[in-house]
Amino acid sequence: MAEVVRNKQVVLKDYVNGYPKESDMMVTSNATICLELPKNEGGLVLLKNLYLSCDPYMRGRMNNTSKGSYTDSFIPGSPISGYGVAKVLDSTHPDFNKGDLVSGITIWEEYSLVTNPKLLTKIQHTHVPLSYYTGILGMAGLTAYAGFYEICSPKKGDAVFVSAASGAVGQLVGQFAKLCGCYVVGSAGSKEKIELLKKDFNFDEAFNYKDEQDLDVALKRYFPDGIDIYFENVGGKMLDAVLCNMRVHGRIAVCGMISQYNLDQSEGINNLMLMILKRIRMEGFLVLDYHHLYPKYFDMILPLIQEGKITYVEDIVEGLDNAPAALVGLFSGKNVGKQVVAIAHE
Amino acid sequence: MAEVVRNKQVVLKDYVNGYPKESDMMVTSNATICLELPKNEGGLVLLKNLYLSCDPYMRGRMNNTSKGSYTDSFIPGSPISGYGVAKVLDSTHPDFNKGDLVSGITIWEEYSLVTNPKLLTKIQHTHVPLSYYTGILGMAGLTAYAGFYEICSPKKGDAVFVSAASGAVGQLVGQFAKLCGCYVVGSAGSKEKIELLKKDFNFDEAFNYKDEQDLDVALKRYFPDGIDIYFENVGGKMLDAVLCNMRVHGRIAVCGMISQYNLDQSEGINNLMLMILKRIRMEGFLVLDYHHLYPKYFDMILPLIQEGKITYVEDIVEGLDNAPAALVGLFSGKNVGKQVVAIAHE
Repeated sequence: MAEVVRNKQVVLKDYVNGYPKESDMMVTSNATICLELPKNEGGLVLLKNLYLSCDPYMRGRMNNTSKGSYTDSFIPGSPISGYGVAKVLDSTHPDFNKGDLVSGITIWEEYSLVTNPKLLTKIQHTHVPLSYYTGILGMAGLTAYAGFYEICSPKKGDAVFVSAASGAVGQLVGQFAKLCGCYVVGSAGSKEKIELLKKDFNFDEAFNYKDEQDLDVALKRYFPDGIDIYFENVGGKMLDAVLCNMRVHGRIAVCGMISQYNLDQSEGINNLMLMILKRIRMEGFLVLDYHHLYPKYFDMILPLIQEGKITYVEDIVEGLDNAPAALVGLFSGKNVGKQVVAIAHE
Repeated sequence: MAEVVRNKQVVLKDYVNGYPKESDMMVTSNATICLELPKNEGGLVLLKNLYLSCDPYMRGRMNNTSKGSYTDSFIPGSPISGYGVAKVLDSTHPDFNKGDLVSGITIWEEYSLVTNPKLLTKIQHTHVPLSYYTGILGMAGLTAYAGFYEICSPKKGDAVFVSAASGAVGQLVGQFAKLCGCYVVGSAGSKEKIELLKKDFNFDEAFNYKDEQDLDVALKRYFPDGIDIYFENVGGKMLDAVLCNMRVHGRIAVCGMISQYNLDQSEGINNLMLMILKRIRMEGFLVLDYHHLYPKYFDMILPLIQEGKITYVEDIVEGLDNAPAALVGLFSGKNVGKQVVAIAHE
């Protein structure tokens, strides 16, 4: 007879204003789930969730309206969702078998019954840590790849600046830029992260933006001849300072603006007029427009990982009980590297 | 014996802060000039200046520093300069002969002795009004052409918005967009200009931004399905409102931000985060990067002018005495169409 178990979930209590708090979510074990699928119903997949990705874009889904986000809002009273890695426990869908490992849209709960397995992709390469599929082999990796190679038009010798540089995307952009022969500087918010950037990720220089009185002065210190490429993850005052330091024909890839996500009114950017003088191209992008590049990206990144030519740092917390704190921590920069929640290790 | 005459000039008195005033310049006849070149000195050209172009970028040259401008500052106490049309009165340079008509960098004075004729181009096509070389056949024309075709990636059916739409550049961009099969809406600052846009320049719609309480509401009225291309001439609040109304994968060509040129601190733009959600590309440009396109542009524009398929409206004032008012008038939108100063008609 089929086993019915408690299914722990992370539920959003209500829509969020301002900075999200742990108490905006609750971890409950009220729900139950049957660990066997009905044999007479096709097209279903039962998952045991393993790793969850914590991403800044998820803040937008906590708003009452989808304005400012490209995905639907979360539903108060229901568990939240994101990208993750899971193991197939049972399947009545022809494409999936018990024991398969998959990545894709994952609900923040221990077990999930999936009625639309189109959102799942079978994991082919298992010689890397499975958690990598929440980041370097998932959305963050493709974001860094598409944003840098497709939007920034990098050339050898370009001066590249990356903000939020130790994060999931930033650490990869910086390393891609180094592989292209660029001069690379990153900013982050703690001494530990600056060390990581310089020692582990091979950035030429790095600085703690919290230690700088004047970001314009800081950028001039590291880029006396200006910036060719800015990979924008933070927005606000940093963007204004960068505009003052861009070189002629510079490129800005707008990946995120995390400093602005929790403000009622985003900060004004005053230096856009410099875009004319300097002929700057600034382009916003979303990884969902680049999913067709996954095979090309995997062809590049898998050998780099195996040969040790890319360093990838994750910040893994254990258990759904710690998931709300992990997600909320993104917005105060608590994570060092890619923030992941491990629910189970297979 | 060589004739020596008074040479009327428009002189900048001092660097300018805030809105420029007529009194920031003075028209003097203190200078004299000899209307014959010394025969024993080669490489010189003596010009009689005919038409002067008034352009918003000239405001930047009135600042004490070249910050915010891509050309040198004017020199207080000296006559200002810009683009214009002139006739060769005398020449000791092999490339120029008496009677030639030229366009290029022109000093705001009746006669000019040119020691660096590289900045002059001989006018080949004289079956159009000579004043056109200050605009549609000069910098404004190439600006509209390069900005629209090279930066905006126009497609048939695109929804195009042009601000400062009756100006030298805007009127051409709107007509180019109509020739491409786009839906085109323009904004301007008077009833007379709105009539011009709809009746003479064939815009689908036009509105007076001064009559609108809420620019976002105004744009939603004309673009219920959003804007594909924004040709930016004004900056400030209009840009913020446009960002709210851009469609996914929209393009913004940043040609100018005239609303900001006379402010000590430019207005903040708050809606840049929408560039991510909507994957907007925004690109600043300067016509000087596109001078190589002049022949291609002339091949397109000359037949259009001759066949009456392009309408071009100029606002011509007569005489150097009226030149300071004409230049200053750009910043309050006094001009209707391309602002030109006629010093002499050959």
